[in-house]
Formats: sequence, C-alpha cells, structure tokens
Amino acid sequence: MLILLKNGTDHIFVHLGMISIVLLGSGNLAHHLCQAFSKSAKVKVVQVYGRNKRALKKFEKFADTTLVLTLLKPASIYILAVNDDAIKPLSMALMEKQGLVVHTAGGIHMDVLQHEHRGVFYPLQTFTADKEVDFSAVPISIEAHKKEDKMLLQDLASSISSEVYDVPSSKRMKLHVAAVFVNNFVNHLYAIGEGICQQEKIPFEILQPLIRETADKIRSLSPEKAQTGPARRNDADTMKQHLSYLENSTHKQIYQLLSESIIKNYEEKL
Amino acid sequence: MLILLKNGTDHIFVHLGMISIVLLGSGNLAHHLCQAFSKSAKVKVVQVYGRNKRALKKFEKFADTTLVLTLLKPASIYILAVNDDAIKPLSMALMEKQGLVVHTAGGIHMDVLQHEHRGVFYPLQTFTADKEVDFSAVPISIEAHKKEDKMLLQDLASSISSEVYDVPSSKRMKLHVAAVFVNNFVNHLYAIGEGICQQEKIPFEILQPLIRETADKIRSLSPEKAQTGPARRNDADTMKQHLSYLENSTHKQIYQLLSESIIKNYEEKL
Repeated sequence: MLILLKNGTDHIFVHLGMISIVLLGSGNLAHHLCQAFSKSAKVKVVQVYGRNKRALKKFEKFADTTLVLTLLKPASIYILAVNDDAIKPLSMALMEKQGLVVHTAGGIHMDVLQHEHRGVFYPLQTFTADKEVDFSAVPISIEAHKKEDKMLLQDLASSISSEVYDVPSSKRMKLHVAAVFVNNFVNHLYAIGEGICQQEKIPFEILQPLIRETADKIRSLSPEKAQTGPARRNDADTMKQHLSYLENSTHKQIYQLLSESIIKNYEEKL
Repeated sequence: MLILLKNGTDHIFVHLGMISIVLLGSGNLAHHLCQAFSKSAKVKVVQVYGRNKRALKKFEKFADTTLVLTLLKPASIYILAVNDDAIKPLSMALMEKQGLVVHTAGGIHMDVLQHEHRGVFYPLQTFTADKEVDFSAVPISIEAHKKEDKMLLQDLASSISSEVYDVPSSKRMKLHVAAVFVNNFVNHLYAIGEGICQQEKIPFEILQPLIRETADKIRSLSPEKAQTGPARRNDADTMKQHLSYLENSTHKQIYQLLSESIIKNYEEKL
C-alpha cells in the first residue's frame, strides 16, 4: 500500500507492508528469486550475500551486494538459497538477527534452523542459468514455526506466484522424493534415450515431440491411466526383444525393473 | 495438382499425384491418421477397414468403411494401423493387392510383410482418444523395400508432417526402445510421483510445472548436461534419507538403481 503523507510542503511516500529481503546465496535459485522479487511492488531486496565475488556481479543491478556476513543489513526476511550442507552453518551466523530466517531446500527439515522465527520457502521448480522462468506458475511450498511468520511468507510467495501451498516439513520432504522421480530420474531416462539415438546416429530431436506430449498428456489424464507400452500390455515377446537390443547392462536392469514395476502395478489393480 | 480437362461441354477435374489410401484399423492411431490425411489436399482416404462396427462409426465422416476384408477397394497404399500381433495375419489377406502395403509399428521389422511393395510408416508419437494432435510436428519414420515406394511414402508423410526421417528397420527397432524409455517409463515415474502425492494428500498439480520444465529444458540443453539431483552430486546422506521415506519396496529398488546408474554415468566421464 502506498500512502501519501503531507509534511509541510514536502510529500513523503511511505510503503506500508513492503517486505524487505536479504538473499543469501549467489547460485541459480538466488538469481531467479532476485529477478522475480525485483518485479514485485511488494518486495524489496535490500542486499545479496555471497562468497563468490564473480557470481555476485550479476546481482548488482538488483540490490546491494556483500561478501561479508557481519555486514548484513536489517530485513524482514533472510532467505538462504544455498546448498543443503551450507544451510545450518550459515544460519548460525544469523542467530542475532531479528527477522524471519527461511531456507529454500525441499529435502531439509525446517528445524535445522534454530531461530524462533524460522520457516521454509521452497519453490518447486528446476532452475537453469540463462533460462528465464515464469515464476507466476511456480508452486511455492511454505512453512513457518510461528503463525504470523507464515502469513508473512504467504504474502511474500503470493507476490510472485499464484500457486502457494502450505506444506509441513514431514510432507515436504516426501514431496521432494517425488520431485526426484519426476525430474532427476526422468531426465536420466531422457539421457538414456539420447544415448541410444547417438549410437544409432539418429538425431535426438526425433524423440522430443514424444517427450513433450508425454509430459503434456498428464495435465488432463492421470499418469496411472495414461500408461501404455509393452509392459502395460504384458507383451513378453516385445520386452524380450527390447532387452536383446540394449548393450549397457545397467540399462538392461533399468528396463527390466521398470517393466516389472509397471506389470505389478496393474496386476494389483485387477 | 489439379488439372481441368475439357470433355465436350463438361469439365472434369482430375487430381494428379493424389495418393489414395486404405486404412486398416479403427484405434487411436488410425483415427488420428485419418483426421490428418483428411486435411491434406494430396491424400484421399478411400476406405477404412475395421472389425469393430462401433469403432468404425467415427470414421464414416471421413471415408467409406467396411467390416469385410474381401471388399477392400483399390488404393495406392494400404496402411496397417493395428496391434503388432495383427500385422502379419492381416497383411496375408492383402497378398493379391497391387498397392504398397505398410505397417505403422515402431518395433516390428519391415520384412514381417511379405509383399514385393512393402514399407513402414511410423509416427513417433503417443496418441490419446479425444486429444487432438498437431501432426505437422510429429516425426514420421519411413522405410520401403523399393526406391519408388520410398518416394511415395516421403510424399505421403510430408503431406501431413514437416519432420520425415528415413530410418531402416534395424535402427528403428532400437529407436523404439528409446521411445519406451522416454515415454512409457517416464510416465511410470510420473505415476510413482503421483502416488507419493496421494499418500501425503498433496495435489499432484504441485509437480506439474516441474514435469513440464524438465521436458522443456532439454530442447536447449542435452539431458546429459541437464542432470541434477542427489545422485548427480553423489550426496549419500540425502539418498539414504530418501530411501527411508519410500515404503514400496519396488520404488526403493527403482530409486537405488536409477541413482546408481546416474552416479556411474558421470563417474565414467570424469
């Protein structure tokens, strides 16, 4: 909210409800968050902390930057956008801060932070350098130890995204495993497909429309119901033939295990 | 090409180079092909054959239909869009036909067909009932025993798609295995993610932007290079914790095997 106060002949603009942020970290997530916050009228990134001078460079157009932890500015929220391992030690350096301290890691419990005012701000997306992300469609999972802090996080999250979910640590950590399946493991299956194409000297592009349609299909059809293929039909001849084509023994094992899992899944539901 | 012939006072239109098609099959693929061909000025579907009277209904607006194999009309190309198992027996019923006989199955060798004029017309896409497909972006892999037949298939394929690939059976059958990895197996990983969400009472929608971005990312970045996650970092603690969250023993095995495969893949490349 913008309020105009008359003070003699001067006009003073005061932003009420503006959320001030200090970002800690200079990687992909920190950079994408900084970009998204800078577009929001409700949020002000007052400072970005990082250990890598070169990585900090690209934050300079958005906010003050610092390499020195003891020079952190006061803020409503301190957001730790760092590697999982760095969360605890870095948070210890913030013990004297008055603001809310949150981390951004899907797989880490909120209580790793020892602050009275602690929370989690987990954007469920994969971020790549130099590839802009439409944050308005990124689901953000929030959590806080104190009720008023959760409201603050709700405000912060909804200033950049229309999909905000209230998810406690125990659920979020399992959600993170699900994210590993649908992102990291799926990407590895793409890499196996790419490898087969390379070996056969077929351009990988030939598989890309199929990849996109497979991802697109489940927006309207549950993956459970969308399942097709030799394993779904329990077509033993085709599976045997496919296995004979695979030269890499690990890929053979993956083919076998995933096929068995599909067969079992639909047997159980007969 | 449309040519106007004067014949006394009558005008007769003759389509030169028009490709006449008989489609055999009444499933999703046959239906999507029929829709795509019907939009092309170069192709005429003269007849659709199927064994299921009800399934044939929806083809009536595009072409004549028949339930009787002995009543097939003459055509330039007979396209078998049927289950893998049905290809051989159905093709035997076409031994007397003059036209080119092709199947549409990624995993079946061309020579399963015993016609002099034989070939393969394999659209590399997954087709769902009631979900329209933009065929112009569907890669079509073609093959023919005779050179002139391959040119005919090239014409047919390029009348509905801008991505036509010339792929012999031996390569195509391996490409089909790659398609199983990036489509059927990927979908199963989506289903595992959906199952975890259901168990935790979190809407599956929360994972969908991540799923889309994972598929989208590899248009500009090779999946090999796009790999992230605990296994890529060889983060043993996180992997151990994730395994402890998984209750289903097959899902545990999948987590373990895919993680090992990722670790091995990047170790080998050090």
